[in-house]
Amino acid sequence: MHGRQETGVFIWVFNEKVHITQGDLEGKAVIVSWVTQKARGSNTVLYWKEHSCEMLKAHGKSKTYKFYNYTSGHIHHCTIKNLEYDTKYYYMVGVGQTERKFWFLTPPKPGPDVPYTFGVNGDLGQSFDLTLTHYENNPLKGQTILFVGDFSYADTYPNHDNNRWDTWGRFVERSTAYQPWIWTVGNHELDFAPQIGETKPFKPFKHRYCTPHRSSGSTEPFWYSIKRGPAYIIVLASYSAYCKYTPQYMWLEQEFPKVNRTETPWLIVLMHSPWYNSYDYHYMEGETMRVMYEPWFVKNKVDAVFAGHVHGYERSERISNFAYNVVNGICRPVKDLSAPVYITIGDGGNLEGLSTMTHAYYGWHRNQDGYAVDGDTMWLFNRIWNPIDDSSDDDS
Amino acid sequence: MHGRQETGVFIWVFNEKVHITQGDLEGKAVIVSWVTQKARGSNTVLYWKEHSCEMLKAHGKSKTYKFYNYTSGHIHHCTIKNLEYDTKYYYMVGVGQTERKFWFLTPPKPGPDVPYTFGVNGDLGQSFDLTLTHYENNPLKGQTILFVGDFSYADTYPNHDNNRWDTWGRFVERSTAYQPWIWTVGNHELDFAPQIGETKPFKPFKHRYCTPHRSSGSTEPFWYSIKRGPAYIIVLASYSAYCKYTPQYMWLEQEFPKVNRTETPWLIVLMHSPWYNSYDYHYMEGETMRVMYEPWFVKNKVDAVFAGHVHGYERSERISNFAYNVVNGICRPVKDLSAPVYITIGDGGNLEGLSTMTHAYYGWHRNQDGYAVDGDTMWLFNRIWNPIDDSSDDDS
Repeated sequence: MHGRQETGVFIWVFNEKVHITQGDLEGKAVIVSWVTQKARGSNTVLYWKEHSCEMLKAHGKSKTYKFYNYTSGHIHHCTIKNLEYDTKYYYMVGVGQTERKFWFLTPPKPGPDVPYTFGVNGDLGQSFDLTLTHYENNPLKGQTILFVGDFSYADTYPNHDNNRWDTWGRFVERSTAYQPWIWTVGNHELDFAPQIGETKPFKPFKHRYCTPHRSSGSTEPFWYSIKRGPAYIIVLASYSAYCKYTPQYMWLEQEFPKVNRTETPWLIVLMHSPWYNSYDYHYMEGETMRVMYEPWFVKNKVDAVFAGHVHGYERSERISNFAYNVVNGICRPVKDLSAPVYITIGDGGNLEGLSTMTHAYYGWHRNQDGYAVDGDTMWLFNRIWNPIDDSSDDDS
Repeated sequence: MHGRQETGVFIWVFNEKVHITQGDLEGKAVIVSWVTQKARGSNTVLYWKEHSCEMLKAHGKSKTYKFYNYTSGHIHHCTIKNLEYDTKYYYMVGVGQTERKFWFLTPPKPGPDVPYTFGVNGDLGQSFDLTLTHYENNPLKGQTILFVGDFSYADTYPNHDNNRWDTWGRFVERSTAYQPWIWTVGNHELDFAPQIGETKPFKPFKHRYCTPHRSSGSTEPFWYSIKRGPAYIIVLASYSAYCKYTPQYMWLEQEFPKVNRTETPWLIVLMHSPWYNSYDYHYMEGETMRVMYEPWFVKNKVDAVFAGHVHGYERSERISNFAYNVVNGICRPVKDLSAPVYITIGDGGNLEGLSTMTHAYYGWHRNQDGYAVDGDTMWLFNRIWNPIDDSSDDDS
């Protein structure tokens, strides 16, 4: 550990709340983010390939933000580019100060025959860490987390106490510093508080978290796409505008034709508010987005949709419901083999292995039981390459 | 006309595109907006009551904006406060330069027994001015325009040529300078053009037009309320987020309980994209907002909803359609005497007279026929004070 001397006072710069996410469309870049308290500290990330002596440098930027009576530390974001696929890299933040070293694995080059394992998680909060612990202990070893929104729940504290964003960042660092979390925003990220003068939605999220949205032509960090291994992952924003003509709509309309299912056979969508949900809580909240986009999901044969919001677990059959035309009375969900499986995972640890271009294993693990017990499992059959009926009977 | 000398060059400051809108919740304020080219000019508005010798002053602010390769003139906004009700005021912009004088009438104090006449208009564009001319010639003499969106259609020109915003402002000045237009945004105000680096929705609208949104606790100019005479008017934003938890949703949820139907018996909603529309064009585009808010409209007995977008005219019966619960198959619009009448007026000139707390006259005039022919008329019966069946048979 190094200190820094400033006008006779020795200031220790702590670099913490380290988190990484994918930094481009293809998986060859990583965005490293961290926070320094008390002083800005270095914006530099040092990184090197395992077994390599060549130390590389990337330079980022930092900023602070205020939220009512809270002032954040210096939040650093640094993108490391031109990484090699399927390679272990070490990286270091706090250069010249409190240096801390971590590592990550880059994904394989996008393609149909590269097995990959995603963890799926959402509505994490910080009341207890069973979900994260179970994920870490799971023998399937998830390589990337698909996070479906609701981070710190700071908005449930007086004046949206943004110190809760800090404690959450520290709590999840043991995972977020080592594998990318793919961020989706939930309602708890809105942090809309006009009563204390905070009227710009998503202010803490926008300052603390980065997404590679520009790489997929998006104009906001809340909706974007990435390729990762055999999967094309589309992240949607439940709490931004999505009506026809809006930026999210215009983007999504242009996004589907870009998906090459020969390169990335698996098409997965993340959102926060589920379209299909049988719980009383949040019942039908997702309807307003479903009626806009469900026809596109079916036409483009999305394999699976993951959502959070509802603090429970649910998995749908392959169904759709868009024959409704106002006057025909047809509005019941019907079996549809071109439709996605809808999975709500507002609770519990989840793992999905995309093994080949035709099969994927999906397992859900209840926090109560630990990883030894599969609460729900399913072999997903790819909607393009193996579109047979897979969702009606549980084969676990 | 006065000129201004600047380093030996004589600059004429033209004050144009003058428009006014209500400047507060209750109708005692007016926002005056205008544009000066070449030089900033004065921010001051001089105003005086008819038959009064006392000249009053209000001071505003000005700004410019850039859109791709266009730079706007100096856009001035000045709020005149503490006006007397039901009074004629003269006002002057271009003080000390090219002075121009206009006038407006303030509305009566909000109350149940103050007759008032609104014009309703939308999708105006600037290809020809029949709609505006017919409105001006109509013997009912509209006192305020409820404008349901789509102003200049600048976005349909190369690079969203913002000179079209200027020509539109000049075209409508003959009306907008003399009576308030209540602004609703349409899809043509989005001006979203990432291909030329313009990624912030509503940029020209936000700079050129003001709404009194803060007076009703709104955090954005796109959704807000005003009282005017016997009416409580809620303006909604079809192209902003409206899902549960979003700023527009949180605002609207708190707005309905504020409406005192004893003070303002008529509850009217403006939006751009219609919920009920039988034209092929834009069919069902409004569904995504309807499924969110229709139960509130019926519960709170909205009298009438005006929308534009579809370039035609349509008026619904009093219907609702929110019994649907995903599995019950109930999704046909049904007769509902607590529901609003939905009127789409993307074409033609329209006038609505709110005469008493129980009756309102509504007349629609086709551009082809002029004001002498009523294309559609209806006596609206108030949903709180006279909620009898008024919508099924046309009494014209």
